[in-house]
Amino acid sequence: MSTALAVYALCVVVLFLKMFGVSCYQGYYRLRFVAFTNQEDAAVFKRAAQAAERPEVIRAARVWANDLENIPAFFALCGLAIALDAPTMLSAWLSIVFTLARVLHTLAYLAGVQPWRTVCYGIGVLVLVGFCTIVTVRVVNSFVSWNSLAADL
Amino acid sequence: MSTALAVYALCVVVLFLKMFGVSCYQGYYRLRFVAFTNQEDAAVFKRAAQAAERPEVIRAARVWANDLENIPAFFALCGLAIALDAPTMLSAWLSIVFTLARVLHTLAYLAGVQPWRTVCYGIGVLVLVGFCTIVTVRVVNSFVSWNSLAADL
Amino acid sequence: MSTALAVYALCVVVLFLKMFGVSCYQGYYRLRFVAFTNQEDAAVFKRAAQAAERPEVIRAARVWANDLENIPAFFALCGLAIALDAPTMLSAWLSIVFTLARVLHTLAYLAGVQPWRTVCYGIGVLVLVGFCTIVTVRVVNSFVSWNSLAADL
Repeated sequence: MSTALAVYALCVVVLFLKMFGVSCYQGYYRLRFVAFTNQEDAAVFKRAAQAAERPEVIRAARVWANDLENIPAFFALCGLAIALDAPTMLSAWLSIVFTLARVLHTLAYLAGVQPWRTVCYGIGVLVLVGFCTIVTVRVVNSFVSWNSLAADL
Repeated sequence: MSTALAVYALCVVVLFLKMFGVSCYQGYYRLRFVAFTNQEDAAVFKRAAQAAERPEVIRAARVWANDLENIPAFFALCGLAIALDAPTMLSAWLSIVFTLARVLHTLAYLAGVQPWRTVCYGIGVLVLVGFCTIVTVRVVNSFVSWNSLAADL
Repeated sequence: MSTALAVYALCVVVLFLKMFGVSCYQGYYRLRFVAFTNQEDAAVFKRAAQAAERPEVIRAARVWANDLENIPAFFALCGLAIALDAPTMLSAWLSIVFTLARVLHTLAYLAGVQPWRTVCYGIGVLVLVGFCTIVTVRVVNSFVSWNSLAADL
């Protein structure tokens, strides 16, 4: 197992647990204020359904939306970088920076702290652009080496 | 091809078709009631755009939201478990349980049946936490065996 | 590196950059009209938070929602087709068609041009169903060849 694969695997685990934490946060506020928008959920507590979610739940839904715009792309791009034998320490460090940035992004979003939320978002995007560069370079290099190999023959 | 990879591949296919089924469900209700929120869609049927989606479409959008919070994580975590040579029958059975739980979750959500929807959601999350454990154990074991190998030399 | 893997890797990069472009489009309209729904974002510009997003931002959010219903499934299904040694040119061409269809879908959605948006969506779904077929055939074939091998022994 390469260091990059080991670090990537642990980062995927941490990111999943972080996202699950946001779901727990939403569930906590729904239960604490017994505020459900689905009729069948409210009925369990013998309440009427709410027209809208609690503000904390809405804010956490925005965390989820931002996560879904970034984290599945990380799953794919970092996985590809490893499959394409990108430099292992580079992939490992980028994975760690991305994971830290996304954890801090969630904390900053839930706390409503700017500009730190935008800084964390920006770091995550920079890492993803970095992985795009790595993947593109690996693909281009492999075609160049094939062509020079063919020219040598 | 390992049994785990074959089962995982078929589960990904089933989960995609299930999610596509939810899109078809949304399209069916939009077409049946000729209710579209995009102006250009309503114009095709010479209608005015609706201010809000139909309740069935909103409910199905919540199914989609819940799917997106769980299914891409399954794609990544089960794929990693297989890449890290986790016990093949364990990965295969967890994949099958996850897939069944998510199919039943969708049916329970669309029918508004509680507590079954929450039970199915919970089973899916438990499987994902199981995959997190498997992946972490594989990574930790590989480092321990490297270290003991280095100590032996 | 197989041609299918190289093409898939570049398609993942293009799809990520396309999705990031949609985020930039949203950010541009929020900044241009200084219209933010989060209080802490509006406060940076000494404005009050808006009750609702700008129409351009809402439209782009629908692009994002449709992307998230299709693109992570492509990441998983095409990755599986390659891992299962599906015919390499078939995977490569399907990846290219999917990527083009999703880029054009975004442009058609932002411009509000029908029926081209639905045509592009439909092409993307057909490619995903194609990958489902490829993956299923590969899994079934591998079990059939194991069984015939076992029968020969």
